[in-house]
Amino acid sequence: MARRSYPPAKVYGLLEPGPVALLTTAGKAGPNVMTMSWLTMMEFEPPLIGCVVSGRNFSFEALRKTKQGVIAIPTVELADQVVAVGNCSGCEVDKFAEFDLTPLPAEQVAAPLVKECYANLECRVADGRLVNQYNFFILDVLKAWVGTAWKDPRTLHHRGKGRFFVAGETVKLKPKAK
Amino acid sequence: MARRSYPPAKVYGLLEPGPVALLTTAGKAGPNVMTMSWLTMMEFEPPLIGCVVSGRNFSFEALRKTKQGVIAIPTVELADQVVAVGNCSGCEVDKFAEFDLTPLPAEQVAAPLVKECYANLECRVADGRLVNQYNFFILDVLKAWVGTAWKDPRTLHHRGKGRFFVAGETVKLKPKAK
Repeated sequence: MARRSYPPAKVYGLLEPGPVALLTTAGKAGPNVMTMSWLTMMEFEPPLIGCVVSGRNFSFEALRKTKQGVIAIPTVELADQVVAVGNCSGCEVDKFAEFDLTPLPAEQVAAPLVKECYANLECRVADGRLVNQYNFFILDVLKAWVGTAWKDPRTLHHRGKGRFFVAGETVKLKPKAK
Repeated sequence: MARRSYPPAKVYGLLEPGPVALLTTAGKAGPNVMTMSWLTMMEFEPPLIGCVVSGRNFSFEALRKTKQGVIAIPTVELADQVVAVGNCSGCEVDKFAEFDLTPLPAEQVAAPLVKECYANLECRVADGRLVNQYNFFILDVLKAWVGTAWKDPRTLHHRGKGRFFVAGETVKLKPKAK
């Protein structure tokens, strides 16, 4: 699946609508991937992302120690894999192998891109001040990629208790701001 | 439109999918409302929300000084109003009157609920440590309400540049976590 470099100024449009995301890391134990939904844009450009990674996640230590990760955005075609990734821990399973996800080398970080995802954001921890109290990481996006195969990516959005909705029809409105 | 008190433990399901939201405040100049998309859950229970309110917004000072606000979640039926609210400033316009939105008294805060929205979250600023640097507020949800008239609320999700999508079909999957 071909991908192209994506302008930093447009990254907000990938995350603002609240898609379920994957986070990859490359800790001591090797590459790992988790499912996450608690993230928000914090600045347009350079793009800044705030996200919660629970201390109970195997990825927490890898993110904290390496200060690097990749946020990858899957579409509904990957729904079963996204849930499976969230249902087990990287301390027990090589999730890339187990769930047929393909790690690809990133350009700026050691954590891998996820080939099957429509967007990948290479990130570095910019501010860890709220990690101890809230497990909240502030990330700089160093490099963004989007797949060229998706026109209207049907992202997944979690409503809780196993209910997700898929991005529906597009409406065009006229906000003055971005 | 009837509403019922909503369990704090279920609030995450309202915000996780990334809906465009309204934020009301009750500052010196009276009640005001703005449109926002940069917010995330930070804790399940008691529910904690992180959100960015730019210092360029008229609501910023009201939120900072009163330490109170209401996050209201509109559905696609309010799309034009949501965009209109985002396109002007409360320093020039009484947006409730101008855009036919009805402020209703909240229970725990001075900021009003928005009658036409399917959910309303009464919030208090819990942590303002990142306000100066990032305009990032951490809010406690003191009380949550949802309208009883909505079954599958068709929330709005911003992709940037005036493109929004509406919450589409629901898929049921089997995550182990909430």
